[in-house]
Amino acid sequence: MIKKIIVGQSGGPTAVINSSIAGVYKKAKELGVETVYGMVYGIEGFLKENIIDLDDYFKDNDNYELLKRTPSAFLGSCRFKLPKFEDDQAVYEKIFEILDKYEIDALFYTGGNDSMDTIKMLADYAALNNKRQLFMGVPKTIDNDLPITDHCPGYGSAIKYVATSIKEVIRDNASFGINKPTVLIVEIMGRHAGWLTCGAALAKGNDCEGVDAIYLPEEDFDMDEFKARVNNLVATKKSVVIAISEGIHDKDGKFICEYGDSDRAVDAFGHKQLSGSAVTLANIINKETGLKTRAIELSTLQRAATHIASLTDIEEAEGSGAAAVQAVFEGKTGMMATIMRVNNNPYTVNYEVYDIHNIANVEKKVPIEWIDSQNKQMKQEYLDYARPLIMGELTPIYENGLPKHIVRK
Amino acid sequence: MIKKIIVGQSGGPTAVINSSIAGVYKKAKELGVETVYGMVYGIEGFLKENIIDLDDYFKDNDNYELLKRTPSAFLGSCRFKLPKFEDDQAVYEKIFEILDKYEIDALFYTGGNDSMDTIKMLADYAALNNKRQLFMGVPKTIDNDLPITDHCPGYGSAIKYVATSIKEVIRDNASFGINKPTVLIVEIMGRHAGWLTCGAALAKGNDCEGVDAIYLPEEDFDMDEFKARVNNLVATKKSVVIAISEGIHDKDGKFICEYGDSDRAVDAFGHKQLSGSAVTLANIINKETGLKTRAIELSTLQRAATHIASLTDIEEAEGSGAAAVQAVFEGKTGMMATIMRVNNNPYTVNYEVYDIHNIANVEKKVPIEWIDSQNKQMKQEYLDYARPLIMGELTPIYENGLPKHIVRK
Repeated sequence: MIKKIIVGQSGGPTAVINSSIAGVYKKAKELGVETVYGMVYGIEGFLKENIIDLDDYFKDNDNYELLKRTPSAFLGSCRFKLPKFEDDQAVYEKIFEILDKYEIDALFYTGGNDSMDTIKMLADYAALNNKRQLFMGVPKTIDNDLPITDHCPGYGSAIKYVATSIKEVIRDNASFGINKPTVLIVEIMGRHAGWLTCGAALAKGNDCEGVDAIYLPEEDFDMDEFKARVNNLVATKKSVVIAISEGIHDKDGKFICEYGDSDRAVDAFGHKQLSGSAVTLANIINKETGLKTRAIELSTLQRAATHIASLTDIEEAEGSGAAAVQAVFEGKTGMMATIMRVNNNPYTVNYEVYDIHNIANVEKKVPIEWIDSQNKQMKQEYLDYARPLIMGELTPIYENGLPKHIVRK
Repeated sequence: MIKKIIVGQSGGPTAVINSSIAGVYKKAKELGVETVYGMVYGIEGFLKENIIDLDDYFKDNDNYELLKRTPSAFLGSCRFKLPKFEDDQAVYEKIFEILDKYEIDALFYTGGNDSMDTIKMLADYAALNNKRQLFMGVPKTIDNDLPITDHCPGYGSAIKYVATSIKEVIRDNASFGINKPTVLIVEIMGRHAGWLTCGAALAKGNDCEGVDAIYLPEEDFDMDEFKARVNNLVATKKSVVIAISEGIHDKDGKFICEYGDSDRAVDAFGHKQLSGSAVTLANIINKETGLKTRAIELSTLQRAATHIASLTDIEEAEGSGAAAVQAVFEGKTGMMATIMRVNNNPYTVNYEVYDIHNIANVEKKVPIEWIDSQNKQMKQEYLDYARPLIMGELTPIYENGLPKHIVRK
C-alpha cells in the first residue's frame, strides 16, 4: 500500500517543472495517497528534513491552477550528485532513515540527467539493502537531452519562448531596413546539445522569413565559413538574424566564447561560463566588416517564461508525473516516466516508464540527419518533431497587470 | 478639406507603435479621409517615394486586429534627422514636391524626440514658405522621455515585459536557495533616462519579493556603494537580483560598461554601445567575492514583446493616433498628441495636442523625488504612476503555436 509519498525538484528549472509535481500530486490523491510531501531544495533539503505537506497548498484548486502557471521550482531545486556507495555510505543511510521516519513509501524526483542518476542510485541502494521504498524519475529539462522519452517536459515551452522571441526580434531587426545591414546574433542555451537552438527554426512561416542560419554544438563551428556566410547574406538582405547555441566550438573543441575576452570564461565553481558566444561573434563581425551588429542572449529568460508556456508541454508534464505515480502503484521502481509519440497528425502520445539504468547519464543529441549543414537550417524532420510540442497556451492569471504566481510560505 | 494623409514610423520600434498607425488609420477613415498612405522606412523612404496605401491592408478588420498584435514598425522605420533649412534646402523642396504630387494634406509621424524634431522642422518650413500641408506628431517611445505628455505609448508595454520577466527570473534565481548566494544583474535599456529600469519595481507584490536594488542613470553610480550593498545583501539572503539601466555612469560620467573590456565600447557608427554594464558588474562581483553571478540583458526583447503588450498601452497608442487626426481636422499643425492623466483611481486620461516646439529635443527624466536613493528602490509615487500603464492584455492570435503577425507585401 502506498500511503505516503514525497516529490522533489532538481537541476535547472523550467517553465513547467511545477506541472510535473502538479501531476504527481493530483494522481496520487486520486489513487488515495494520504500524504504527498514535497522536499524543499531537492535531496539536499530532504537531508535537512526540509519537508512540507503539499495538501497545505494544493487542496485549493485555485492554488493548483496557479502552480501550473508558476515558473521555476516551486519547491526549490538543488544540484547534488549522490556519491558512490563505497565512497559515502552515510548519506544513503541518512536518506533511508528520513524516509522511514516519515513513513514514505515512494520518492519521485523531477529533473534531467543528474537527477535521474539520483533515482538510479537510490533504487540500486534499496535493492542491495532490502529497502522497501520505491523510486521513480519524472523527466524535466529544457535541454531535451534525456534518452528513450520522445522529448522532455520543459522543452516545448522553452522553444515556444525561443521561437516567439525570435519572431519578435526578427521584426525589430528588420525595421531599419533602408540603410546599412544589421547583423543580429541570438544566443540560446545548450552546452552539448543544440535542441533549444533548433527551436529558432520554428519562427519561419507565412508571416516570418525565419532566421538566416542556425549553428549547433553538434557540428564543429568554422569561423571562416561563418564570416563568409554573413558576407553573402548582407550582400542580398538588410537584416540578418543568426541563432547560435552557447556551446558552439571549433574543431579543436575550443568554445567560441573563448575567442573573446577571457574575463567571462570561468564561473565561481570553476565551470567555464559559456555565455558570451554571441557577443564574441558580433564583435568579430563588427571589427572585420564595420557592419552594425547586435547580440542577444536569451539566458534564463528562456527557461522561466511560464507566461508563454506551451499547453501541450504543461499537460505532458502533468501526464508524466501521473504516469510515474501509476507505475509506483504497480510496484515499479528504478524507472523514469517517458512520453512516447504515437502519432503526429493528430498528435497523440502514450506515457510509459523505462528502466532508469538506460537513461541516467546518457545524453541525447540532435540527430545529425535533421541538420541541413549546407544551409545551416533544420530539416523538415525536426519541424515535424517540434511543432506539436509548442501548441496551445494556458493563459496566465493576471493580478495588478502581471502574471500571478504561487509562493511557498 | 483633408482628403489624403500619410503616416510614418520613425526611431526605435516599440511593442505598440503599430497601434499608433492603427489609430491614425481608423480615425481618418471615420472622418471621411479618402486615402491613408503609409511611408515605408519613415521620411527616408518617403524621399524615395516608397509609399503604400493602407487600405490595401486594413480595410480587412482581421488585418487591423493583427496590426495591433504585430511588434516593431509595420511600415519600417528610420533614423534621419532633417538638416537646418540653411544647410540643405533641397531636401525640404523634395519633401513638399512629393506631398504635392500625392495631393497629401497632412503628415503624421510616430516617434520619440528625433522624430518630433522632424515634425517641428516640417511645420516650420511650411509656415515660412506658405505651404498648405499640416504636420502632426504621434508620441511613441519605450524610453518614456517625451515632455508634456503624462507618458508615452510603448512605455507601458515595455515595463509590463520588464516586470513580468523580472518576476520570472527572480523565481529562477531563487531556485537554488540552499547553497551559496547567487547574484543576478538584469540590464534594462535607457541611455540617459531610467524610466524602463524603474519598471522593475513593479514586480514586487504578494507573490514576489521584488528586486533588491535599482540603479538608474539619473544618479551617479558609486562602485564602492554597489559592492557594499551586494555584500550586505548576500549576508542575509541567498538570491540577490539587481536591476540596472544600461546607461549608469560614475560621477565623472564614465559609463559602467566601460569598466569592462573595451571591445564592446564602440559600434559601427562610432557610438558607444552601452550594453555590457550587467556583465561588467557581474564579473567584478564574481572576481572580488567569488560569488556566483549571472547577467541578463533584456536588450531589444523588451521593445519587441508584443505578445505580452499592455492593453492600456495599445488603446492609448490608438487614442493618440486618433487625437492627432482629430487635431488636423481642426486645422492644427506643428503639434504632438499628448496623453493627459485625469484620474488615477479609476485611471482615466484625456487626449490633447501640444505645440511641438516645447517637445522636440527636450528629454524628460525620472523625477529625483520618486527615487529612494538610500534603499535603491522606487517610491510609491512611481508605482502609482506606472501601475495603470501595464493593466490589461490583448491576447495574441496564435497560428502554429506562435503569435501571428502581419507583414508588408
